[in-house]
Amino acid sequence: MAESWPFLDTFEPNFRPLVVIELAKGTKEETIEWFTKRIVDKKANGGEYNMIFCAQLLVKPLVTESGDEHIYLVGASHLRLLLGAETVGLVKECSDNSMRTFTYSSRKTFKDFADDNHNFLTMAECQYIIKHELENLRAKDEKMIPGYPQAKLYPGKSIVRRLLTSGILVQIFPLHDREELKKLRHSWYGRVKVGYQPLDEIRCYFGETIALYFGFLEYFTFALIPMAVIGIPYYVFAWEDYDKYVMFATFNLLWSTVILEVWKRICAIMTYRWGTLLMKRQFEEPRPGFHGVLGINPVTGREEPVYSSIKRQIRIYLVSLPFVCLCLYFSLYVMMIYFDLEQWALDYHEANESNFSSLMLFVPSIIYAIVIEIMNRIYRYAAEFLTSWENHRLESSYQNHLILKVLVFNFLNCFASLFYIAFVLFDMKLLRQSLATLLITSQILNQFAESLLPYWLQKRHKERMKKRMCSLKTDTDLSLVEQVNLEKEMGTYFGTFDDYLELFLQFGYVSLFSCVYPLAAVFAVLNNITEIYSDALKMCRVYKRPFAEPTANIGVWQLAFETMSVISVVTNCILIGMSPQVNALFTDSKTDLILTVALVEHLLLAIKFIMAFVIPDKPRDIQIKLAKLEFESLEALKQQVRATDVYNSEK
Amino acid sequence: MAESWPFLDTFEPNFRPLVVIELAKGTKEETIEWFTKRIVDKKANGGEYNMIFCAQLLVKPLVTESGDEHIYLVGASHLRLLLGAETVGLVKECSDNSMRTFTYSSRKTFKDFADDNHNFLTMAECQYIIKHELENLRAKDEKMIPGYPQAKLYPGKSIVRRLLTSGILVQIFPLHDREELKKLRHSWYGRVKVGYQPLDEIRCYFGETIALYFGFLEYFTFALIPMAVIGIPYYVFAWEDYDKYVMFATFNLLWSTVILEVWKRICAIMTYRWGTLLMKRQFEEPRPGFHGVLGINPVTGREEPVYSSIKRQIRIYLVSLPFVCLCLYFSLYVMMIYFDLEQWALDYHEANESNFSSLMLFVPSIIYAIVIEIMNRIYRYAAEFLTSWENHRLESSYQNHLILKVLVFNFLNCFASLFYIAFVLFDMKLLRQSLATLLITSQILNQFAESLLPYWLQKRHKERMKKRMCSLKTDTDLSLVEQVNLEKEMGTYFGTFDDYLELFLQFGYVSLFSCVYPLAAVFAVLNNITEIYSDALKMCRVYKRPFAEPTANIGVWQLAFETMSVISVVTNCILIGMSPQVNALFTDSKTDLILTVALVEHLLLAIKFIMAFVIPDKPRDIQIKLAKLEFESLEALKQQVRATDVYNSEK
Repeated sequence: MAESWPFLDTFEPNFRPLVVIELAKGTKEETIEWFTKRIVDKKANGGEYNMIFCAQLLVKPLVTESGDEHIYLVGASHLRLLLGAETVGLVKECSDNSMRTFTYSSRKTFKDFADDNHNFLTMAECQYIIKHELENLRAKDEKMIPGYPQAKLYPGKSIVRRLLTSGILVQIFPLHDREELKKLRHSWYGRVKVGYQPLDEIRCYFGETIALYFGFLEYFTFALIPMAVIGIPYYVFAWEDYDKYVMFATFNLLWSTVILEVWKRICAIMTYRWGTLLMKRQFEEPRPGFHGVLGINPVTGREEPVYSSIKRQIRIYLVSLPFVCLCLYFSLYVMMIYFDLEQWALDYHEANESNFSSLMLFVPSIIYAIVIEIMNRIYRYAAEFLTSWENHRLESSYQNHLILKVLVFNFLNCFASLFYIAFVLFDMKLLRQSLATLLITSQILNQFAESLLPYWLQKRHKERMKKRMCSLKTDTDLSLVEQVNLEKEMGTYFGTFDDYLELFLQFGYVSLFSCVYPLAAVFAVLNNITEIYSDALKMCRVYKRPFAEPTANIGVWQLAFETMSVISVVTNCILIGMSPQVNALFTDSKTDLILTVALVEHLLLAIKFIMAFVIPDKPRDIQIKLAKLEFESLEALKQQVRATDVYNSEK
Repeated sequence: MAESWPFLDTFEPNFRPLVVIELAKGTKEETIEWFTKRIVDKKANGGEYNMIFCAQLLVKPLVTESGDEHIYLVGASHLRLLLGAETVGLVKECSDNSMRTFTYSSRKTFKDFADDNHNFLTMAECQYIIKHELENLRAKDEKMIPGYPQAKLYPGKSIVRRLLTSGILVQIFPLHDREELKKLRHSWYGRVKVGYQPLDEIRCYFGETIALYFGFLEYFTFALIPMAVIGIPYYVFAWEDYDKYVMFATFNLLWSTVILEVWKRICAIMTYRWGTLLMKRQFEEPRPGFHGVLGINPVTGREEPVYSSIKRQIRIYLVSLPFVCLCLYFSLYVMMIYFDLEQWALDYHEANESNFSSLMLFVPSIIYAIVIEIMNRIYRYAAEFLTSWENHRLESSYQNHLILKVLVFNFLNCFASLFYIAFVLFDMKLLRQSLATLLITSQILNQFAESLLPYWLQKRHKERMKKRMCSLKTDTDLSLVEQVNLEKEMGTYFGTFDDYLELFLQFGYVSLFSCVYPLAAVFAVLNNITEIYSDALKMCRVYKRPFAEPTANIGVWQLAFETMSVISVVTNCILIGMSPQVNALFTDSKTDLILTVALVEHLLLAIKFIMAFVIPDKPRDIQIKLAKLEFESLEALKQQVRATDVYNSEK
């Protein structure tokens, strides 16, 4: 390899910093030297192709005010990035508008490719490539990290991950591009306008996972508009006729199936355009926290920690599962105490009516809201601890188990009281009231805690930093030093989990009891419009820039939303069956009523499943494009086999 | 290509006939000459690799008693077959026990491969390869079939398919191997024994689709045994306690989920061993009956008939769907007439009790059974006509639409009367009686009509043929001529559709009303044991040998069985709720009873879905083997890309 790319040696004069590496203060010299050498060294010294021991990137120390060199900027030559794009399997658009996996040898066939066009790869893609290369920097024959005998290494272990887990490496993060960010901010939320978000620009800047979240948020908001529009007259004219409610609920149920199915199609269109729909899944390396006895991985044949799957199953089913059940039980128990308190407060208020007693009426709700919040947070830590303890080999499997745990608990914590009011107390008025209070307060609190508060803190911090910077003015590139120092102190964005969770719970409020409170959709729409702005603000101003993550869909959330829509069929049918208007129709026989409701419910569920089955997940033109690519690759394979045959027979 | 395989020219002295081609009597000489030339000719005269215009096979005319040459035997050299195995993408076992796609250049790494080992490919595989090569014989620049100006051709049209649709080609079928068949018969059903079927041998002889059917039949029979064992004491001790029924039904429901999930795993193990789990899906050509205006296929870019998908959708939703609904309605209408007749016969019997009147009691059932059978047959033709008229491009899509149509109608036709008795008449005694009668008579009739009758007819025909043969004794290889003449008159086996349908309906009888008639499983087990034998007899003695079809699973039937098990949860819950024992528990409130039943039903359905989600579809070791292969191919791709880079940079 090395002999084929001699021109990689040329250190580009216009070094463009892409990624920041922050080491712990006081890291030993020999460690820094060894680490940077590994990052900079040319590949394939040993002639081994399978494993990458050197990343061949560019590194430059950042001289800070204290003169301490513990922050490094990483960049790469244009050629190196193109080769990296091939390694990670990026899919780009060709000149003939088809999407193809990028290879360096076929680079000329790609749209907008030119040897001097440094914008062929977006900055987010470049940063993703560098992150991938850094994470794949593997130990060769070192037994430990030089200078740190306790940080053990074995052949093939990711160096960066070991540095992170042993605390020598504080963080790695991509730098913002201030010009680009300014442009993006302007087109995203800079001006008041009606229209779509610049999703393609968001994707170029933040990567596909985040762009897909904003795409989903926008789509979901648009999809809620019909429900909101139909819901308004129920409030305005105070409609209480059962047939109107039945109509609304039926529309709602079918609509929620349709929007979830259509989303899959829209998602396929978007990710096809972005190239991630076609991106081959890379072989997943073990996650950083994974530990085990050193053994042979049966799949790769490489030496790596191995952990028995049976042990993991035992931990999941004998510890995690009972713990989650216990937590759910505890949450229900707390809810029962809340209802007791509520009753007690009501009794007290009736017994001694006073200003104090009417204030006391609010106390149980406030306490309950606080307790719910506290429980959610404690449970989140517990879930993270447990899932980490389950010792999943892959990040994806870790994430799925964590999401499942958190989802179930949050669902119960948020909706249990509503279910209790609806199906045990049978108090529709209280249900409507609780639903409205919960929905609106949770929305306000969320937006405040999620964006505005961190934004304000960040702004204060920035001003303080600026003052300090000005007083220390040195001759280095201050603006870059300043930027790095600012950004490294910013909070880390831990992924789209919380954002999706919020939307998921909102979907629950809107759909589970939709026939009781048609106005919920209106509030959800209003919230989501501001949510788009506050989330955009959060991404651009509050958090460190996150690394781009290519993704082809919203993953397990699709399943979560679909499950919610199935549950909402059941709840809505029961609610309609319980309404006094419907009961009035079946005065002579309550059995007939229940049987009718059960029949309707089963019919609706059957229609739902048939609809999900009949609506294709990908639009026809995307299907054809995918089939075309598959056909071409089959043909190419045949050609290749024949070429090999001719080659062999010539020998 | 041609220059690399000069040794393909050598006509092997020991020509082994594999496939028989029967042309219509009186086919023009020039057509025969052109067709056989295309089959025999060497490949790549024109240097074009993408399309195969010549098959390079061996053809020998069969001289019949009349001297008329209209039957041809097709064979191929060993080398040609190995190259064909690569073309169709066969997966074989390597020396290191891993499964890999066969390529000629890597042939030495495969287990049991030797240049003189002609048993490396099974006879079924050889016949499959020849069928594939024949079907892929494409028109080059002919505008029509020589001698038949009305049989139009266009570049790339499959010649064999055009010959078939224009009636020049009567049939193509693979020959039996009498020695092998004898051995197979012996180990399959030749001796009375307890044990498994020789599935691997069946697969070698008949191919994967048929072996998988027998595998499923055997698995299903074993899976029913626990249900049968538990069901027997209900009959013996005449248990009528509701708790025992509830237990039986609950066990039944969970069991049916488990067996369907476990089947997926067993299926994966089997098809991994057979290599079909790894086999890449080939690009599907249009089915023979597909027609349309000549256009450009957007996927392949080739010229072929094109038919608008919207037109097809219109035909499906505006014609087929209403027609099916009408048929379903008609079937229900006939059922109502049957119940009227039944009532009338009962009244008549009560009014004038006599021998004649008690005979009259059976008349409605007999008439209804006959009518159902007639309706099923007429509907089957209608469904085939309609699905064919819908003009599906692919055979798989045609099959799916046909199966769906037939399945829905058969389900209603067979079970509607039972549903009516159970949920409208509420007559549990009649339900049990009807269920038993329907199950047992349908089983007896099926086995008779499916195997014994054709076997007897076949035997008579064979004896007649033998007599005629002996009187005409000529000097040609009589035994082969005799064999071909016998086999070409045998019935054609139209695939596993009817066999699976029978099992599907049986599964319905066993599971839908299991808590009413626990003995159903016993009869099902008894039936299936004889079914294995009669189906084996059918395959070996009654029908022409079918072409092997590689397949990795039972396809749409898995979905059908799973749907049935979901429906059976609903029916069983209702039946238990209706039982007098359960009703006795809820004397004071019928509402509570219904609510409890609905709750239990939803819980069971939830458990079902969670179980289906939690049980992995493939066993862990198969998962690891598949992951290993994927990893290897990813690594190989990287190597290859690098090699290409080096190669390019050397240039």
